[in-house]
Amino acid sequence: MSLQEIFATRATRMKASEIRELLKLLDQPDIISFAGGIPDPDLFPTTAFQEAFADSLTGPLANQGLQYSPSEGHAPLRQWIATHMQTLGIPATSDNILITSGSQQALDYLGKLFLSPGDTALIGWPTYLGALGAFNAYEPRYDKLDPLSNRGGADYAADAENAGGKAKFAYLSVDFANPTGATVSHAARERVIDLADEMDIAIIEDAAYQSLRFDGEAIPPILAIEAARKNGDLEACRTIYCGSFSKTLSPGLRVGWVCAAQPVIAQLVLMKQAADLHSASLNQIAICKVAETHFDSHIATIRNAYRARRDAMLKALEEHMPKGVSWTKPEGGMFIWVTLPDGLDGAELLKRSLETERVAFVPGHAFFADGSGRNTVRLSYSTSTEDKIRTGVARLGKLVKAAIAR
Amino acid sequence: MSLQEIFATRATRMKASEIRELLKLLDQPDIISFAGGIPDPDLFPTTAFQEAFADSLTGPLANQGLQYSPSEGHAPLRQWIATHMQTLGIPATSDNILITSGSQQALDYLGKLFLSPGDTALIGWPTYLGALGAFNAYEPRYDKLDPLSNRGGADYAADAENAGGKAKFAYLSVDFANPTGATVSHAARERVIDLADEMDIAIIEDAAYQSLRFDGEAIPPILAIEAARKNGDLEACRTIYCGSFSKTLSPGLRVGWVCAAQPVIAQLVLMKQAADLHSASLNQIAICKVAETHFDSHIATIRNAYRARRDAMLKALEEHMPKGVSWTKPEGGMFIWVTLPDGLDGAELLKRSLETERVAFVPGHAFFADGSGRNTVRLSYSTSTEDKIRTGVARLGKLVKAAIAR
Repeated sequence: MSLQEIFATRATRMKASEIRELLKLLDQPDIISFAGGIPDPDLFPTTAFQEAFADSLTGPLANQGLQYSPSEGHAPLRQWIATHMQTLGIPATSDNILITSGSQQALDYLGKLFLSPGDTALIGWPTYLGALGAFNAYEPRYDKLDPLSNRGGADYAADAENAGGKAKFAYLSVDFANPTGATVSHAARERVIDLADEMDIAIIEDAAYQSLRFDGEAIPPILAIEAARKNGDLEACRTIYCGSFSKTLSPGLRVGWVCAAQPVIAQLVLMKQAADLHSASLNQIAICKVAETHFDSHIATIRNAYRARRDAMLKALEEHMPKGVSWTKPEGGMFIWVTLPDGLDGAELLKRSLETERVAFVPGHAFFADGSGRNTVRLSYSTSTEDKIRTGVARLGKLVKAAIAR
Repeated sequence: MSLQEIFATRATRMKASEIRELLKLLDQPDIISFAGGIPDPDLFPTTAFQEAFADSLTGPLANQGLQYSPSEGHAPLRQWIATHMQTLGIPATSDNILITSGSQQALDYLGKLFLSPGDTALIGWPTYLGALGAFNAYEPRYDKLDPLSNRGGADYAADAENAGGKAKFAYLSVDFANPTGATVSHAARERVIDLADEMDIAIIEDAAYQSLRFDGEAIPPILAIEAARKNGDLEACRTIYCGSFSKTLSPGLRVGWVCAAQPVIAQLVLMKQAADLHSASLNQIAICKVAETHFDSHIATIRNAYRARRDAMLKALEEHMPKGVSWTKPEGGMFIWVTLPDGLDGAELLKRSLETERVAFVPGHAFFADGSGRNTVRLSYSTSTEDKIRTGVARLGKLVKAAIAR
């Protein structure tokens, strides 16, 4: 899935035959894969979903689950999410919630809503590949958002205008981001609000991994910080929060959400109605049942599992990586970002790794809008056992040492 | 659902408060509604879906159904659809199939793929409201497609260029179309292929109601006719067929498909990957199971039910409508299109009807790109009993007679 992500979404230049060869490799059972940025299927709350779907297909709910439904989403699910948002400090009601088919769809709609060709999107560097994929369709220009630098709103705005468009939004993946595992600091979140207020642009807060914090202190969402600044008035906020059940309950059901001021939600509802009418009715009903009964306990379970895997990977990196290699220490999520010595190339390393060491990962340059970052790689620990993590990282260490020696 | 469709999607001019008032009326149990263009939920194959979802959430399939999956769709479902296409004379393999979230999503993607602002889309007049909604986002101009007129490809092309864009595709809802219930004749289908070949544009064939033929002889899909002309080579075809399970098995699961030449599918797969990754995995697995085991028998059941309702409505119209009122005699689908005497207004009639006769329907002008057709209304018989159809049409007849007398 994730190699497909890289080789197909972004690098369409890569030939289909090459992609097929690489994917075939991944099907081989001796490959240890740190490539997939996906949940471990063995951690899915399958029993809870069995019950939820059986219940949802019984009695009057069945007709509702199999029938067309409102574009804004299943009312009880919107209510559950609004309450969940409140626990994060966001004063939302269900009128502030739109259900989307994963947060990927939210990014697509927001690209469609804001971007005209030549407009500027301020993004992290590197950033989530799927965000680039979604925004690219609307032909923006990208500028590197660096909230704690000296660049002010006027600087970003001037560059956007010089490039022939307008700055339209700042996009940030805030917690344990794909691909780096890094978290945007409280100070940077505050500063982004300042910049956006100054430039009068939207903030798109991608919170796909928000629930997966293992340790450290939780930082409030940008939308919570902004609402607090604006006297608790969500309607005065410019931040658009994108959430998802994909990393917590199930990605295959395609249920995510947007939380924002009501006029933004109203626009997006019209857009969704024109684009696919609504997200699957039955899935919304079932995921609402599972969220109501199992969310907190299930989150605790998967946090524990992923925490142990992160710990195993950090320890193995410490043990096996040579000097000159550095990596992030994420407080949650699924990813560790490794920076190799200058001159080493993540894509070349992957090729060699698949041939000799049978370890898969994602070359980092795919995540840069400008194709830079060739000496970086993304490792995911989410779908591997601790044993496999130790074995795989040891092999990678060997490979990196050999590459440095060459 | 369908009133929402009209009042929100198209006529965003209508105020939210007015929409709410009208929708509240519809919730009242004494209203007889011919408004919804939706399947009768009492005809859903609920037991089959109960089994299919239970099976899909058991064993290794569960992990597959709850996990991310390929953007092009669940392989066995693509195979079932390809075989289904073959029974309609379309020489498809599963490589010609993309699974979409309903055929609505296919229309959105095709708008996105083909239309730049100012380009021309050739459409029927009136046409499916959701198609206008999907295409409108890409700011096209519309031209009225009239295949059996004297207008040739050069005429359409010249008008498009004069308007500052290019003609990009012809869109047709081919069988028992929403809103008119009319079917595009074999001769018109042939002629559309001639025109599209001459202009080198795509044909978008909306076949959402294809399986709902009650009587008369089936006309081959445009894609089947084109493939036959082109020596059975689907790859040489310009027709893009959009199918759906929404009118046959369930709309709430959001599963439809596109069948087209492989390069078109490849483009749409990239687009889908960027827009929402894939349609819900579990739903594709479950709908595949139900299609494999119940499609033919279930289609027979719903055809019988809807045929009886159409017959009841046609008979009641004959009995209760005054001279000067005419209507279509659909051979399938869910709709009858009524043309009132000039000067009568469908929207005004609806208002009066909701006040005094408690019968809902859809004013026809909403389906015209130019807002004409004020003396038309769409009646749907899909969700009413034969008794209610008789009562409702009798009341409507009374109302129309009174309006004519005024």
